This record gives sequence, structure tokens and C-alpha cells, in this order.
Amino acid sequence: MSSPLRLGIAGLGTVGIGVVKIVQKHAGLLAMRSGREVAITAVSARDRMKNRDADLSAYRWEDDPMAVATADDVDLYVELIGGDNGIARDSIQAALRAGKDVVTANKALLAMHGQDLALLAEDLGRVIRFEAAVAGGIPVIKTMTESLAGNDIGRVMGVMNGTCNYILTRMESAGLPYEAVFEEARQLGYLEADPQLDVGGIDASHKLAILSAIAFGTQVDFDAVEIEGIERVSIDDIRRAADMGYRIKLLGVAQMTARGLEQRMSPCLVPADSPLGQLVGGTNMVVLEGDSVGQIVLRGAGAGEGPTASAVLSDIVEIARGVRMAMFGQPASRLKTARPARTAVPAAYYMRLELQDKPGALAKVASVLGDAGISIDRMRQYGQHSDTSVPVLVVTHKTTPEAIDYAIQTLPRTGVLVSDPVELRIEEV
Amino acid sequence: MSSPLRLGIAGLGTVGIGVVKIVQKHAGLLAMRSGREVAITAVSARDRMKNRDADLSAYRWEDDPMAVATADDVDLYVELIGGDNGIARDSIQAALRAGKDVVTANKALLAMHGQDLALLAEDLGRVIRFEAAVAGGIPVIKTMTESLAGNDIGRVMGVMNGTCNYILTRMESAGLPYEAVFEEARQLGYLEADPQLDVGGIDASHKLAILSAIAFGTQVDFDAVEIEGIERVSIDDIRRAADMGYRIKLLGVAQMTARGLEQRMSPCLVPADSPLGQLVGGTNMVVLEGDSVGQIVLRGAGAGEGPTASAVLSDIVEIARGVRMAMFGQPASRLKTARPARTAVPAAYYMRLELQDKPGALAKVASVLGDAGISIDRMRQYGQHSDTSVPVLVVTHKTTPEAIDYAIQTLPRTGVLVSDPVELRIEEV
Ligand SMILES: NC(=O)c1ccc[n+]([C@@H]2O[C@H](COP(=O)([O-])OP(=O)(O)OC[C@H]3O[C@@H](n4cnc5c(N)ncnc54)[C@H](OP(=O)(O)O)[C@@H]3O)[C@@H](O)[C@H]2O)c1
Ligand SMILES: NC(=O)c1ccc[n+]([C@@H]2O[C@H](COP(=O)([O-])OP(=O)(O)OC[C@H]3O[C@@H](n4cnc5c(N)ncnc54)[C@H](OP(=O)(O)O)[C@@H]3O)[C@@H](O)[C@H]2O)c1
Repeated sequence: MSSPLRLGIAGLGTVGIGVVKIVQKHAGLLAMRSGREVAITAVSARDRMKNRDADLSAYRWEDDPMAVATADDVDLYVELIGGDNGIARDSIQAALRAGKDVVTANKALLAMHGQDLALLAEDLGRVIRFEAAVAGGIPVIKTMTESLAGNDIGRVMGVMNGTCNYILTRMESAGLPYEAVFEEARQLGYLEADPQLDVGGIDASHKLAILSAIAFGTQVDFDAVEIEGIERVSIDDIRRAADMGYRIKLLGVAQMTARGLEQRMSPCLVPADSPLGQLVGGTNMVVLEGDSVGQIVLRGAGAGEGPTASAVLSDIVEIARGVRMAMFGQPASRLKTARPARTAVPAAYYMRLELQDKPGALAKVASVLGDAGISIDRMRQYGQHSDTSVPVLVVTHKTTPEAIDYAIQTLPRTGVLVSDPVELRIEEV
Repeated sequence: MSSPLRLGIAGLGTVGIGVVKIVQKHAGLLAMRSGREVAITAVSARDRMKNRDADLSAYRWEDDPMAVATADDVDLYVELIGGDNGIARDSIQAALRAGKDVVTANKALLAMHGQDLALLAEDLGRVIRFEAAVAGGIPVIKTMTESLAGNDIGRVMGVMNGTCNYILTRMESAGLPYEAVFEEARQLGYLEADPQLDVGGIDASHKLAILSAIAFGTQVDFDAVEIEGIERVSIDDIRRAADMGYRIKLLGVAQMTARGLEQRMSPCLVPADSPLGQLVGGTNMVVLEGDSVGQIVLRGAGAGEGPTASAVLSDIVEIARGVRMAMFGQPASRLKTARPARTAVPAAYYMRLELQDKPGALAKVASVLGDAGISIDRMRQYGQHSDTSVPVLVVTHKTTPEAIDYAIQTLPRTGVLVSDPVELRIEEV
């Protein structure tokens, strides 16, 4: 057996402690599977006195993550602090320069600085792995970089923020409005310190941008993701969508088109009986489409101590085994600059309109849709919603986002709507 | 860039030609992702004159796969002939001895001789990869050996024979009996030359035995799989199960228990709204349970040219990249002999009984179940089935297979059944 792989772990929160526990519990299994011992030598976090759910007495404590990243007795630096800048980034760079490989779970950092870090690692002949950064325990990075290596990938989709999926699922099951469930989620500790990262779709978009880079051989381009969060999803739309056989999910889609790379994160309708539609609670799902393999669906826990630590360990074992992979599945220096394109791939759309309850209202709506070149697949008019308005649901045939934008801007000018029209894309899954 | 990886491909059927096509179509992509060119130098099949769906003129033709396996200008031998013995096995051994690595899709061979081949490869410092052997395009071997390396795996389940799933799905959707759909499948070319491999559950059991070895660090033990095919699944049971919220699937389950390793392949009931229950047609699904990661579900095409070739290519690219993995995720010499155990893990069971339509019949049944220690969760008595019999469905609470066996043997002795009782396990998924 070769010499032990010596880990330095910075960050002893949910994920960091999860990693420590697995290394302690499965020392024998890990040694057998890696062909060498996996041992922790040094750890770091902010507060040395904090009570943590693991015995750390056998490891050297460092107040400064930089000391772990550059220590002589560390072969692999495991960054589990978080943050898209500052100490996480600085310490990873220092570790690479000190000749260490790196494992991280930090999607925010990779979404912002992934390309630079990959280039630095490549220059220095070091490896950065990050399976835990996207969809927690689901092996999506490995599947894309390795299992689909023989495929031209056409589209990547995913529900990759468990908190948003929890909120949407819970709104439906409990019949509660967004604000109430948001408050519940906050009290349950499901939300990030800055909830916009979750409900604003930012966290999920970090992940989508990373997957796009691998799928399409392009540099990570987080700024080009069209992002919409779940704040405007109403219980009304969830119910109406269910009536029509759909569920609403915060869905990320990345797709290479002739015009360029489309990346969008937005609440979408998906068929209630599709794998994505069936996904309830905090579970994540990623759907990958390759020209040879067809559609692959991966499902599992997207966050939490065990699943995320499991993904970190898979990276650690790969490095222990001597596997040296380019970060995004090919040399970073060869990644093309993505040509971002606004969403133009046609789709069916769902529209909810609150019409004045008077003759001719529907005719005016139909005429606007006709002018926009939108043809109607299904339409439902419900009984009066209030004294004066009736809800009308429209599912369109495939149409362009431009046509929908035109309709949404023009419809209020008909004077027959009592509130702003709602539209949601129906993603073909 | 390093020197090209030179492939010798034996077997130019569905999978072999699929591999040739990808290598030709994606030469650039493969080189970029592998860090070196991937080139075919020699090929072999039985009939040189056969019209094949690819241009093979650039490759040396060998009538004998042994010549490909041992050629000086071949680095990697790709065995896509099939068969659990004979030329497939001989040529793989010859290739290893000649210093080649091997990629194969041959589950039958690995189920029978996987341990010996792994030992031979290990002795010789060579690598055998076989992602395509289990569940086609689904990256289950990679996920188990690599992504779950930090997990103690508790249970592995899967629907891994597309033909069986097609037959069961089609029986339900078309309301046709087994024999009729079997005949359809035969005419569509879905069945192996020996249909027992499919409908008898053998092919799926080959795959299960391979997964067990990886999951539990034990030597492949195909003979210990308790196998039951789908021949006795009736349209009646499919309909009744649906009534109670279940679907019938040919499900493989491998599970380590205190008494030993349980491996079974049998028609089971699963909740209709579970991921396994939702699986229709030829799609495959594998469910993996690890102590840290929780439950991971992988879904995709389990067979066919593109998906299977995609899996073969993932192995080829790994070898091109220089990745050297022990075949079952750890040294073959360290794999333990599995201690096989007959299924004893309790489960709920479904029973269908055709009772004589006379007073006291149900009481006699209830009394046998009571004697067996089986308690009833749900029972449904339907209207008369024929002039003289009524169907009764029972869903039991969790009970042992022994208790069920006792009941099934004892029930006919009550004299109130008009036909043999049917039981099916309800697997908790
Ligand atoms: N939680 C998940 O389910 C999950 C899933 C996927 C990816 N991730 C990613 O994994 C990373 C860690 O997440 P987490 O949930 O484990 O975070 P966490 O629970 O907040 O833990 C962060 C850790 O970093 C330490 N830390 C913060 N600033 C530091 C500094 N300047 N120097 C040294 N240590 C410092 C903290 O120290 P103290 O403990 O002393 O405060 C704490 O131990 C993040 O990048 C996150 O995005 C998390
Ligand atoms: N098909 C799938 O979807 C699938 C999925 C997973 C795994 N697999 C596995 O992949 C392997 C190949 O399957 P397949 O479906 O591609 O089989 P196939 O279409 O029947 O092709 C078999 C090939 O092997 C050649 N062959 C047979 N005996 C030979 C011999 N003695 N010498 C040289 N060549 C010989 C045949 O030559 P001729 O063409 O000249 O007759 C044919 O090209 C099998 O192990 C199978 O279990 C298949």
C-alpha cells in the first residue's frame, strides 16, 4: 500500500463535520477502496471552542485556513468554508501553489472564479474536484465529465435547490401562500442567511452555470444565466397548473443552440407525471441528454450533512486512487468563451388571466394572442373568482418567448384584465 | 498530447457498431476529453461480408478475435461478442496476458467468471472495465465504485431488463395476457435468442450479481440469486395490484443482512407513484442506498446501440485518461466469499385467492393466515369472478417469507380455493 493521503480540512460546519465523521467511521473501507489510508492531519474553523459533533482531538488545529492549505503534512486541501471570495478563494490558490490538490463544495466560488482556478490548477499540475458543489449527493459532475464523455450533450436540466422545491411542494400540499411557507422554511432553518440565494434562484444558477461549462466545453458564465426566483409563484398558479396536469418547479435549463448558449433558471411547468414533476420536498434531480445515451435522470438528496459529505469523499477517494482529471472534463485552456443567447427555443406556455366578467372580454384576449401569432392548445374559463372577475387559463401551442412577451405587454392595454397577466414556460422534459 | 490509444474491437453487432460510430463521429471531442487520440486499429466479427452500418475500411479485419486481442498495435481490447464462455472469455484472457487492458459489455461472462478475470487482470497489472454490462447507458458501475466510495451500501435495487419491463407495462396498458405480449415482443425482436434469459430473469440476475459484488465487497455469486421470471404474472394480478395502488415490476434486490447476503430477482409490487412504479417501457432504473448519501436513483436506457455504446466509450475514455481502477472497486484478492442467505427480510405481501362462493370460505382463509402469524393490512372481496368463485385480495402487514410459504402451502388444504393462491412480495422502495 502507498503512503497515506493526508487531508487538511478547512471549515467544520455541516459539510466539514460530515466529512470528518465518514473518515473516522469508514477508515477501513476507505483504505480498501483507495488502496491507501485516508487520514486527516489538520483542521480549521473560526471558533476553536465551538462544540462540534465529532472528536477532533487527533488533528492539529489551525486558526487560519491558510496554514492548513500550505502545511507540509497536507497532501489534499479540502475547502468547506464557503463564500465566492475571500478566504475560500485565497486558501485554495495558496494550496495549489503549495503543490496540494483541492476538493471543494463551493458552488458560489466556482460559478464566479471557476475558470481562473482551473487554469491555475492546470498550470501547476494540480487537481481541483467539486462533486459536492452541484446537487449534493447526486454524482452529476462525475456522470457528465466521465460517463457521458462519448456524447455530445444537448441539454442539461435540473431541480437543484432543495429549499425552493420544498417551498413549492409544501405550498401545494398545504394550500398555503408563498409568504407563509417561506416563513415556515425560515423557522425550520432551511434558508441561507441571505434567502435570495435560495428563493431568488442564485444558488441553483451557480450550479447550472457549472454544469453548462462541462456540458458544452465553455467557460463558466454565471452572469449570462437568465434568473427568476420563485417569489412570484402563487398558490393560485400551483392549483391551476395542477388542474391542467402540471407541477411548478424551479427548473434550470442549459441548452446549446445555433444562436449560442441558453441558460435559464425559472419557475416552469412540467408534466405532473414526469420524473421532474414527481419530485417532492428537498430532493434534487438532474436530467442529462446526450446524442448517444439519450436521457439520463439522476435523483437524490441535494444537500445535508451525509449526502454532501458523501460527494466530498468520492472526490477524496479519486485523488487517493491517483485519478487526475481536468476540472471541467477537458483542459481549461481549451474551454471556449460561451456565446450567451437569450432564451429563444420555442415552448408551450401557461397563462393565467383575470378577466372582467363582461361580454367580449375573452374575444379581446383571443385577438391579442392571435396578433402575437400564438395559437391556443387548451383554454379554461373558471367560475367567478370575485364579484367582478373570472380566471381564464390558457395553455398555448409552442411559441417563442418574444411572442409571449408581446402578448404580456399588450394584454393589459385591452382594458379587460383586472390584474397583471401571469405567464410560465412549460418546459418539455 | 500522448500517443493515441489504439482499440481492437471484437464483435460488430448492435454494440460494436455503435462504438465504431461514436469513435468516428466524435473523434475530436474524444481526443479533447481524453487528452489523446482514440483510434481503432483492428476489428473482428464472424462474417466479413456482412453489410454493417459503418465504414470499416480503415481498420484491419481479423477473422479471429484472438488476433485482435493479442495484436501489437492494439492497446485496449474491446470485447463485444457476448457469451459466458468460449471466445469471449478466451480472448479477454489472451488480451490481458498480452498486456492489454479490456473493456467489455458482457454481463453473462462477468456473472460467471468475473472473479477469475478480475484476479487475472490484477496479477498482470491490467484493467477490465464493464460499465455497459449493467443497465446500458446508466452509469451504475461508476456511481457504485467511485461516487459511493465513502458509503457503506445497504441495499441495491433495480429494474434492469427492459424487455420484461416492456412486457409488464404493455400487459397493463393494452389489457393483454402475458402470452400475447410475449409473442408481440418476439415479433418486435425484443427477445434474446433464448427468451429465458429475458423473461426467466437470468439476464437481470447476471447484472444484480455484479452489482452485489461491488456493493458488498463480495465475490460475484450468481448461483446464489433467487430467481423468478415474469411468466407467472397474470393480467389479473396486474389489474388487481393497480386497484390497490401498485405496479408489478421484475425487481432485483441485493441486501446485506446479519444472516448473509440476500439476492433475489422476482416480480414484486411497488407503489405506483414511486420512481420504480413510474417506470414504463424499456427504461431501466437502479436504486442505491448508502449510509451517508441516502437513496440515489439512476434512470435511463438500459440497452440499445447508442446508450450501450455510450457506456463502452466512458470506459474507453477513462483508460485513455490513464485511470486504473480495481474491477469491483477494491482489489479482487480482498473480496470476501459471500455468505448467501435465503430471503428472510420481512415485507408486506400481496395475495390473490379465488374462493368458492359459499359461506365460511373467508373465515377459513382468515384462520390459516392467523395460524401463520400473518396479519392483514387490507382485504378486498370482489364480485363473483365466475359462476362459482369470488376473487379475494389480501395485502398483509410485514411478515416473513416463511410465514407466507406456510400460508400458501396450507391454504389449498382448506378446500375453499378454486385455484392455486398467488403471492407477490411488496418491496419497500
Ligand atoms: N450544507 C449543505 O448541504 C451544502 C451542500 C452542498 C454544498 N455546500 C457548500 O459547502 C460549503 C460549506 O457549507 P456548510 O453548510 O458546511 O457551511 P457552514 O455549516 O456554515 O460551515 C462553514 C464553516 O466554515 C468555517 N469558517 C467560516 N469562515 C471561516 C474563516 N474565515 N476561517 C476558518 N473557518 C471559517 C465556519 O467556522 P465556525 O464553525 O467556527 O463558525 C464553519 O465551520 C459551502 O461552500 C456550501 O455552499 C453545502
Ligand atoms: N444489445 C444491447 O443493447 C446490449 C446492452 C448491454 C450489453 N450488451 C452486451 O454486449 C455484447 C454484444 O451484444 P450485441 O447486442 O452487440 O450482440 P450482437 O448484435 O449479437 O453482436 C455480436 C457480434 O459478435 C460477433 N461474433 C459472434 N461470434 C463471434 C466469433 N466467434 N468471432 C468473432 N465475432 C463473433 C458477431 O459477428 P457477426 O456480426 O459476423 O455475426 C456480431 O458482430 C453482449 O455481451 C451483450 O450481452 C448488449
